[in-house]
Amino acid sequence: MNIPQTSFPRVVIIGGGFAGLAAARRLEDQELQVVLIDKHNYHTFQPLLYQVATGGLEPDSIAFPLRKRFNDVENFYFRLAEVTNVDASLNAIETTIGSLEYDELIIATGSTTNFFGNTNIEKYAMEMKSVPQALNIRSLVLENFEEALLETDLEKRRALMNFVIVGGGPTGVELAGALAEMKKGILPKDYPDLDIRQMKINLIQSSGELLKGMSDKASKKSEDFLIKLGVDVWKDLRVLDYDGKIVTTNGHDNFKAETVIWAAGVKGDAIDGLEQDCLIERANRFKVDEYNRVVGYENVYAVGDVACMQTEKYGKGHPMMAQPAIQQGKLLGKNILAKRKGKKLKPFKYNDKGSMATIGRNKAVVDLPKWRFQGVFAWFVWMFVHLFSLIGFRNKVIVFMNWIYNYIRFDRETRLIIRPYKKQNKYSFVKENV
Amino acid sequence: MNIPQTSFPRVVIIGGGFAGLAAARRLEDQELQVVLIDKHNYHTFQPLLYQVATGGLEPDSIAFPLRKRFNDVENFYFRLAEVTNVDASLNAIETTIGSLEYDELIIATGSTTNFFGNTNIEKYAMEMKSVPQALNIRSLVLENFEEALLETDLEKRRALMNFVIVGGGPTGVELAGALAEMKKGILPKDYPDLDIRQMKINLIQSSGELLKGMSDKASKKSEDFLIKLGVDVWKDLRVLDYDGKIVTTNGHDNFKAETVIWAAGVKGDAIDGLEQDCLIERANRFKVDEYNRVVGYENVYAVGDVACMQTEKYGKGHPMMAQPAIQQGKLLGKNILAKRKGKKLKPFKYNDKGSMATIGRNKAVVDLPKWRFQGVFAWFVWMFVHLFSLIGFRNKVIVFMNWIYNYIRFDRETRLIIRPYKKQNKYSFVKENV
Repeated sequence: MNIPQTSFPRVVIIGGGFAGLAAARRLEDQELQVVLIDKHNYHTFQPLLYQVATGGLEPDSIAFPLRKRFNDVENFYFRLAEVTNVDASLNAIETTIGSLEYDELIIATGSTTNFFGNTNIEKYAMEMKSVPQALNIRSLVLENFEEALLETDLEKRRALMNFVIVGGGPTGVELAGALAEMKKGILPKDYPDLDIRQMKINLIQSSGELLKGMSDKASKKSEDFLIKLGVDVWKDLRVLDYDGKIVTTNGHDNFKAETVIWAAGVKGDAIDGLEQDCLIERANRFKVDEYNRVVGYENVYAVGDVACMQTEKYGKGHPMMAQPAIQQGKLLGKNILAKRKGKKLKPFKYNDKGSMATIGRNKAVVDLPKWRFQGVFAWFVWMFVHLFSLIGFRNKVIVFMNWIYNYIRFDRETRLIIRPYKKQNKYSFVKENV
Repeated sequence: MNIPQTSFPRVVIIGGGFAGLAAARRLEDQELQVVLIDKHNYHTFQPLLYQVATGGLEPDSIAFPLRKRFNDVENFYFRLAEVTNVDASLNAIETTIGSLEYDELIIATGSTTNFFGNTNIEKYAMEMKSVPQALNIRSLVLENFEEALLETDLEKRRALMNFVIVGGGPTGVELAGALAEMKKGILPKDYPDLDIRQMKINLIQSSGELLKGMSDKASKKSEDFLIKLGVDVWKDLRVLDYDGKIVTTNGHDNFKAETVIWAAGVKGDAIDGLEQDCLIERANRFKVDEYNRVVGYENVYAVGDVACMQTEKYGKGHPMMAQPAIQQGKLLGKNILAKRKGKKLKPFKYNDKGSMATIGRNKAVVDLPKWRFQGVFAWFVWMFVHLFSLIGFRNKVIVFMNWIYNYIRFDRETRLIIRPYKKQNKYSFVKENV
């Protein structure tokens, strides 16, 4: 890996997401060598991925080059690689570019789509956990419309214009809303020779409410908003399979659809090599104590989505979202410094600042600890919170400009098919690879 | 293709580049049915592709969705397809999505990279005629630096940091300058553990001057600018071969380089099916008369790069650049309307408004018909001309914002490796496919 051995202890952080970045920022310019490893050379602001998928934003405005973030930090090394194994007995990790020893190891690998073992769905459905995946969705949606134009068989045309989103969490709700906005504002203009009324957006939720985890009011209101936008909301319906053509469910309704987006579950992106019993198998997350130490280890930590800290209030661990990840990362950074100085560590306590989701133009729901509201004002709050959470001044400005433009013009301009998804697949393009 | 037969005559335009778009705009809202066919769903502003390749701009700010451009035009149809053949005896074209009859056919397919039959160079060198190709260059440059970091063999590391640009025309000059700016401003900060002095940018030109076709002063000054920026300019040197590792030339100097960008030639992207003798084989351009009619045909036209109109002043046809393409497209549109109304056609006369190239920050050369200047003012002129030539208000604003930001911060922010080029190739990703 070509990283110098110095007298400073080495902290290795795997993953430059919310948790990894927050930890790295606490550890910079200390008497430590910090090595950050990520399989991408950028940090992804995942809450806005759905806008990349629906042509509202370009990737460069929601992603930030990791090297740039740290390019004035001493004793900091970034490596573009995938970590394949941890050997805690040797205090070393193995990666695609060689092995590396650590003094402290922070696993912040985040989460990945959970298909719950259904290989068909994994093969045929789209997912949206990374920038390339979001771009694939964008390409596929537009390619389907181009194909629908040519299709004279009515049933096939309908299948091309039938979108099924599985999972009524924030990702599913926001994506369904954004697609509905496209249906209203853009597609009828871009495809005047197509009957856009035939486009259907189905949001399928296995339980009885959307945005589980938010308030009843938010859940109810988001459903109202979606219905108003023309989304068909299916509750208490479970998707059983998808063969690339037909979505089968446990109800009477099956769906003939060329596009299925799977937003029904995530699981930790755990790394191989640690003891089996520190992993919660179903969730694929590492059990950690209140200092984010992986159980059974003194110098191996997990933070964010890949960590499961079981507390009285959060029996299944904290929600797999940005806030717990950032807070855990920050505290872990501080605790590692404290440990190195022989000071007392501080246990983690989640400060739930609330949650929010946007459904469409002027339509959002916000749950603050003491205040819940929905509608136009919620939408403004959502926008400003997301704008200020973006890393980088330029990103903030470009996103703000795009939002103003899109708002005034009822438009989403970045609808370019730059990497055709279907065509790539024809050439045996590997889905996982992108 | 699912395009209705109406009583209006049908004009089919192949290609939504400068020439095709200019023609289409003249023909809109007339008593005609216009069908525009392109293999991309967007128009590419090619003069700024090198900024996409070097991380200065995102694709969406230099490309414009073709459907959007025409979405308020009646009797207009866009189809995303590749045209495979013209059968003039049937007045029909064949495409990847079916065949289509035409009353008037405009071939505006532009140009493609000319490797002059060298299949090795075609296989291993990068080209930059489209957005995906520009993004491939961006990914490869950054991937090479990530790899160089890990390379302990000095010679191999140098090869990863050795860039060879073949061709001293505007594309080669602008790309070399932009890479040199990256070397100065960004790479030392992003790769502090790499000796960036080992990075070499070689610009190889087979003749004795850069920017052939521009004034001696512009040619000389652009060379001065490049040398000042640290580019190694090689004149009177011809590249003979490249095997993926070593560039062999007809001189004493060979180059060990992992990245070769071929900007040494273009040829027309002619379509099959027309009579052999209307094609100029070497240039792959269609011979056209002064009305842009392909010789021997009454209702088949070629415009822009793919057309070769031999005049007294332009014995080998007009330069393959935006200006002649736009002017020919506009006039052809008018002439087709005139022909349909039984009016007299107007012959084409090229109005050479001058040419310009930018080398780097505050460094450009401009040749106007009556005024030639270089330096800071030329750079401002270059910027504003390009800004105002971009299609779409939003694109203008986003590009302008990015330029201001990059200028103030000495930065180019969009350095994300979103589609790794090397990794894709490993998975038998087809280069032509993107």
